[in-house]
Amino acid sequence: MKEAPAWEVSINAQLLIRWWFIHKEMAWVYSFLPLWLRVLNKIENIIRKHMDTIGTEIYMPCLSPRENREKTKRIDSVDVLMKTSGANSVSYNKCTNEYILNPTHEDVVTPLVQQYTASYKDLPVAVYQIQSKFRNEARAKSWLLRGREFRMKDLYSFHASDEDFDAYYEKAKVVYSDIFKELGLGDDTYLTIASGWDFTEKHSHEFQTVCDAGEDVIYIDKKSNVAYNQEVAPALASAYEYGKDQWVLEDIYGENVVSVEKLCKFLDLPVQQTVKTMLYKDQDGKVYAAAVRGDYAVNELKLKKVLGVASLELLNDEEILSYTWAERGYAWIVNLPDTITPVYDDALESMVNMETGTNKTHYHTINVNRERDLPRPEEFYDIKDAKAGDREPQTGEEYGVESACEVGNIFPLETRFPDSFGFTFTDSENKHQKVVMWSYGIGPSRVMWVLVEKYHDNKWITWPENVAPFTHVIIAIGDKWGERAEEVYQELQKKNIDVCLDDRNVWPGFKFKDAELIGYPTQIVIWNKTLEQGDMCEVIERKTGEKNMKKIEEYISSL
Amino acid sequence: MKEAPAWEVSINAQLLIRWWFIHKEMAWVYSFLPLWLRVLNKIENIIRKHMDTIGTEIYMPCLSPRENREKTKRIDSVDVLMKTSGANSVSYNKCTNEYILNPTHEDVVTPLVQQYTASYKDLPVAVYQIQSKFRNEARAKSWLLRGREFRMKDLYSFHASDEDFDAYYEKAKVVYSDIFKELGLGDDTYLTIASGWDFTEKHSHEFQTVCDAGEDVIYIDKKSNVAYNQEVAPALASAYEYGKDQWVLEDIYGENVVSVEKLCKFLDLPVQQTVKTMLYKDQDGKVYAAAVRGDYAVNELKLKKVLGVASLELLNDEEILSYTWAERGYAWIVNLPDTITPVYDDALESMVNMETGTNKTHYHTINVNRERDLPRPEEFYDIKDAKAGDREPQTGEEYGVESACEVGNIFPLETRFPDSFGFTFTDSENKHQKVVMWSYGIGPSRVMWVLVEKYHDNKWITWPENVAPFTHVIIAIGDKWGERAEEVYQELQKKNIDVCLDDRNVWPGFKFKDAELIGYPTQIVIWNKTLEQGDMCEVIERKTGEKNMKKIEEYISSL
Repeated sequence: MKEAPAWEVSINAQLLIRWWFIHKEMAWVYSFLPLWLRVLNKIENIIRKHMDTIGTEIYMPCLSPRENREKTKRIDSVDVLMKTSGANSVSYNKCTNEYILNPTHEDVVTPLVQQYTASYKDLPVAVYQIQSKFRNEARAKSWLLRGREFRMKDLYSFHASDEDFDAYYEKAKVVYSDIFKELGLGDDTYLTIASGWDFTEKHSHEFQTVCDAGEDVIYIDKKSNVAYNQEVAPALASAYEYGKDQWVLEDIYGENVVSVEKLCKFLDLPVQQTVKTMLYKDQDGKVYAAAVRGDYAVNELKLKKVLGVASLELLNDEEILSYTWAERGYAWIVNLPDTITPVYDDALESMVNMETGTNKTHYHTINVNRERDLPRPEEFYDIKDAKAGDREPQTGEEYGVESACEVGNIFPLETRFPDSFGFTFTDSENKHQKVVMWSYGIGPSRVMWVLVEKYHDNKWITWPENVAPFTHVIIAIGDKWGERAEEVYQELQKKNIDVCLDDRNVWPGFKFKDAELIGYPTQIVIWNKTLEQGDMCEVIERKTGEKNMKKIEEYISSL
Repeated sequence: MKEAPAWEVSINAQLLIRWWFIHKEMAWVYSFLPLWLRVLNKIENIIRKHMDTIGTEIYMPCLSPRENREKTKRIDSVDVLMKTSGANSVSYNKCTNEYILNPTHEDVVTPLVQQYTASYKDLPVAVYQIQSKFRNEARAKSWLLRGREFRMKDLYSFHASDEDFDAYYEKAKVVYSDIFKELGLGDDTYLTIASGWDFTEKHSHEFQTVCDAGEDVIYIDKKSNVAYNQEVAPALASAYEYGKDQWVLEDIYGENVVSVEKLCKFLDLPVQQTVKTMLYKDQDGKVYAAAVRGDYAVNELKLKKVLGVASLELLNDEEILSYTWAERGYAWIVNLPDTITPVYDDALESMVNMETGTNKTHYHTINVNRERDLPRPEEFYDIKDAKAGDREPQTGEEYGVESACEVGNIFPLETRFPDSFGFTFTDSENKHQKVVMWSYGIGPSRVMWVLVEKYHDNKWITWPENVAPFTHVIIAIGDKWGERAEEVYQELQKKNIDVCLDDRNVWPGFKFKDAELIGYPTQIVIWNKTLEQGDMCEVIERKTGEKNMKKIEEYISSL
């Protein structure tokens, strides 16, 4: 097409539509045209090859009965769940049943595996599938990243014990790494620790590919080559040189100076000298004051873990007033009722001459010092969101902070779904035991998106060889090419080379331009000129631009 | 499983569930377990290989916008159409859009191809896909035949003219035959002429596989190797020897003797001497009397074509009375008002001493003879449903009448869908012309069903080699097998033999029984006994039961 469609926001979607890779059917639903489908098939076959070493492929339907999701109590809570029904009165009256259009298959695979698994001898079981999934997304980001209909590989493993899972998981991690390596994403894809589900203490694992347009931010510890997403990244604050002298404690009146930026300006203080205190209550109404350095945010997930509570909620204005006798924005840890438990972030440990709230509206205290002005707490905790410049506490290494796109994930489902279906197994002593379950996803549509994002230059996509729509194209030009190019095409096919013959009756310029756009890694040009030089062809490498004249016979046998 | 599930009606579904090929999720929706998925993949890859010679594979989504089907006026008329919506209030409120879950893709592929097709130079275009389709079936027959969710290959071709289509169609027919041949269904699959869609005069073509449990009946002309479905089979009635003498015309009183069986008994006449007359009116209210021999039924489709009318409807009792002055069951062609047009079936041409109605309630006339008692019509027509014993009029060959299952079809969609989307092309004189469109389907799920139906013996399925889950199984028994069987397995894999190694730690009897049930075409038995005879194995052919001891090395190189 002469112009990219203006209605498409994402640049790579614009280009893919313009160059006939995809066709937009409606918002976040696309048809895959021939070249794009070839890429998808290559991606899915690479995934399949590796998954076959740790699981068995099955194919579950897109439709499932409502009852399964009623049993797992997900019928009302999953906010992307779609259902089907008759689309007109004739169809509806004929069959009024409604079905679920599966967004994932935990609720389907669990009773399926249950039927074939009774004893410890049948475990572990690992099954996977590659198919289309459906989500009722309100507004999908970046087209392929969160589509209404998208491709997914989902594997589910069932184990007799956590130990058995642990051994399996080590294999699965290697397999995942191998897959991303073969897809051309190995160097930029990190095993990333993320938070687990509500019902588990365990972390889930994501595979995140570093990518400028990615919607996530990851913290990479280059020493261990492990990354964290922001929610769980352990954070050692960047060092700051505080002076040694303790200055005089002072309360300063500053009307409505609440934000950190305003405050630093107003008091002429570096942000590292300020403290932010947030007041939370847990599920039982117990109240906590969490204090972090002014340039950090409180990480509620970490705070919950430190406190060992199920949920946390910020106090509202009224509650703040009743607890601190001050408006929101002036809370501080001292002079609070005993019923409030203080929690200090570890960045506060080394702070000298801190600025804090005073629990008095419009008042700020400066030059607060521990031991002199307030007791030293028994312990400091990491309760802050990581940010650029922070270090990994174990290795001491400064994080690499990068935008990234999640291409795979591993979830500890534990016994949640087996419990819903009463799925147990009998152990060697014939006792019923709980089944442990995990799920492992890879999104082929997301992988495609990332590949396009990462591998394009100013001309177009420079596909990694393993996933290019074709690895070679024969560009045939002039009146003599016909027979010879066709022969070369046949010979390369016999050698299982993934080759495309451009035998269209169009101007040579079109063929060269299209070859660039489609991104074949290697172009083989056959025309009058090259043939007249003694059965030669010109071989052009897309990535380097290198051009070489080669004897056709020799070139073919070199492949 | 020890027993087949009693709730499954179809015997082959019972067995497939029992032997772990499929898992029922709900009525007419099944999960494909590993072995069954391998069969599906083989079937789909055979189809794909052949389709690639006449079309290009694409992948359209399962979801489509309502607007497309509003344009084609199919939103309210397709009685199996399903739609999607949010499954709970959170999901629904987030995004209230409803989408169509495609049962076929004419309404999606037409605007898609339109976007890339402007001039006659761009035509023909043929694209296909293989994917899951959805239908809101009220009660599906024979599980896989009409599922709510099923696999389908659908190809759509677009042409500048009927001539261009004709040339393409000849290629497509050969490709279809090749596919069914490779699937192991070649000998029993017939190109079957069927009726076209409402908007076309043209026949559609079905590919029907002869199969006892099939839901259709086809009429096979063995001379031309073409079959017809009953609706369109041209029918030359079986010969009947009428005497030469014309007997005396007589009216006989017979109260309420209306059905043919009762009548023949009452009058002591062979059914071939009776005539059945049916009264119809067309869309404009014009009335016709259609007369067929007593042992035939009037074929409304044929009658419509003979009369050149858009629709026909049987007269109701009141109308019959007003036109014939007699109750239903006593109509006859003579003595009717001139406003009623008579149509004679060609089986009536040779009849002598016919029994007919009299247009008088309770009266039957016997020994009616043409020219003596009624005028000879200008023409006789074939307006009857074919039945067993009939012949094909062109070849004179008696039809083979067989139960069959439709595994593929070809529909003349003509300009209907292109017209709905305003899809035209410019010809060489730059004039806008209409695009001609056809669709071509093959149902992989149906093919699987037919394969199981056709290829089972008393033990289980005897898969044709091309679609067996694995072609070879290595059955390893005893304590010495381990290393050697593993070696053989590796060597066969290197030779691209589709082999499975049964290395389970179970009793040999289990392995032999499972091998029978799964239906591997070839079993390779490796155990202490065979190894001790000088590195031998026993090769068992599933189909013939033939057993041979073979040197392992020699056997491997023979493959």
